Amino acid sequence: MRISELSEQTGVPVPTIKYYLREGLLPEGDKRTPRLTEYDDRHVRRLGLLRILREVGDVPVEGLKRLVAAAETRGTVHDLFAVAADALVPIPPPPGPGREQTRAMADAIIAQAGWDKVRAESPDRDNLAATLELVGSFDTHPRDPSEIAPYVAMADQLARQEIAHLDDRKDRVGLLEEMIVGQVVFATVLTTLRRLAEEHHSHARFGEDRRD
Amino acid sequence: MRISELSEQTGVPVPTIKYYLREGLLPEGDKRTPRLTEYDDRHVRRLGLLRILREVGDVPVEGLKRLVAAAETRGTVHDLFAVAADALVPIPPPPGPGREQTRAMADAIIAQAGWDKVRAESPDRDNLAATLELVGSFDTHPRDPSEIAPYVAMADQLARQEIAHLDDRKDRVGLLEEMIVGQVVFATVLTTLRRLAEEHHSHARFGEDRRD
Repeated sequence: MRISELSEQTGVPVPTIKYYLREGLLPEGDKRTPRLTEYDDRHVRRLGLLRILREVGDVPVEGLKRLVAAAETRGTVHDLFAVAADALVPIPPPPGPGREQTRAMADAIIAQAGWDKVRAESPDRDNLAATLELVGSFDTHPRDPSEIAPYVAMADQLARQEIAHLDDRKDRVGLLEEMIVGQVVFATVLTTLRRLAEEHHSHARFGEDRRD
Repeated sequence: MRISELSEQTGVPVPTIKYYLREGLLPEGDKRTPRLTEYDDRHVRRLGLLRILREVGDVPVEGLKRLVAAAETRGTVHDLFAVAADALVPIPPPPGPGREQTRAMADAIIAQAGWDKVRAESPDRDNLAATLELVGSFDTHPRDPSEIAPYVAMADQLARQEIAHLDDRKDRVGLLEEMIVGQVVFATVLTTLRRLAEEHHSHARFGEDRRD
């Protein structure tokens, strides 16, 4: 198909497609004549992935590049997921004075959860530490690490389900796509559902409460 | 205390404090002389809230203004939470061709969850619809609405816990602060933990898997 058809089928504007081609995020099409380049299903599929990552995941272009590069590495599917996870993960904020302590706390939480396959260098260890540091610096919230236990249990349950549901018939890139879409989209779904549930449950406790 | 001490105590730079004062996000201090303005604990507390919202929640200035305004409305604590929720919620993306159908699906999910106190005009109904629309537009993922059931159950459990744990001794602004910090921070915590758990659980299934 031509670039205009590719745009129509995917909903991605032609200038954006050209940008992705220049950035190497989309493989070149098949140049039939100087004025006609053919695109195919691989392009449709890749654009679908790029669209969801941009629209829902808010992944910056640098992250998209690392993801596309990850899709072409060798190694196990597990290694591939780790590269992808790093591309999707926010860069941890610079450490404050409490970081050493909260990093130890983060490592302890991960160890207690039994997640011994998490790499020592995973940036999410520092992300968890940074969030714990922030909580600790804020008066309104109790600092009890046991407060985090229900979240650990839920994360474990979610991750088991999500890994178990990946479609075994797919190739490595297909698995990667499904994994990424699941991570990005279902994080959004869960956050939205949680706010909705809070609106509902706050009514039972605070619906008549007019305290000062 | 002086503005320099306020900055030192909260870790918020003086220019940022001045900006918040100009924008009305921080109440004016007590002008003792033309060159000396006194700030107090209310300022410390408000700056702590603003910092966490900016750093963790990535809440834009417009959202901060609505939150601060919400803290000064009357009505029940439940009403106050609803105003705050709207300030924190992302603006739903513009509807695509499938939106009418996914909005009906979103409303059905909320009704089936029993969340009948969620306002008809909550922007999160459209946020949920928009995410469902996106999932539907993407090949890699099954379109079965039952796939969302475990997320609904988890969101319900989380929300119950979070509402139940709010400290009853607090005034309305204190409750609002605790609610917001909880929403913003524990959404980040859960997302991070989930990625960590996925890294761990993917090893069991894909640690030796080198498929093409």
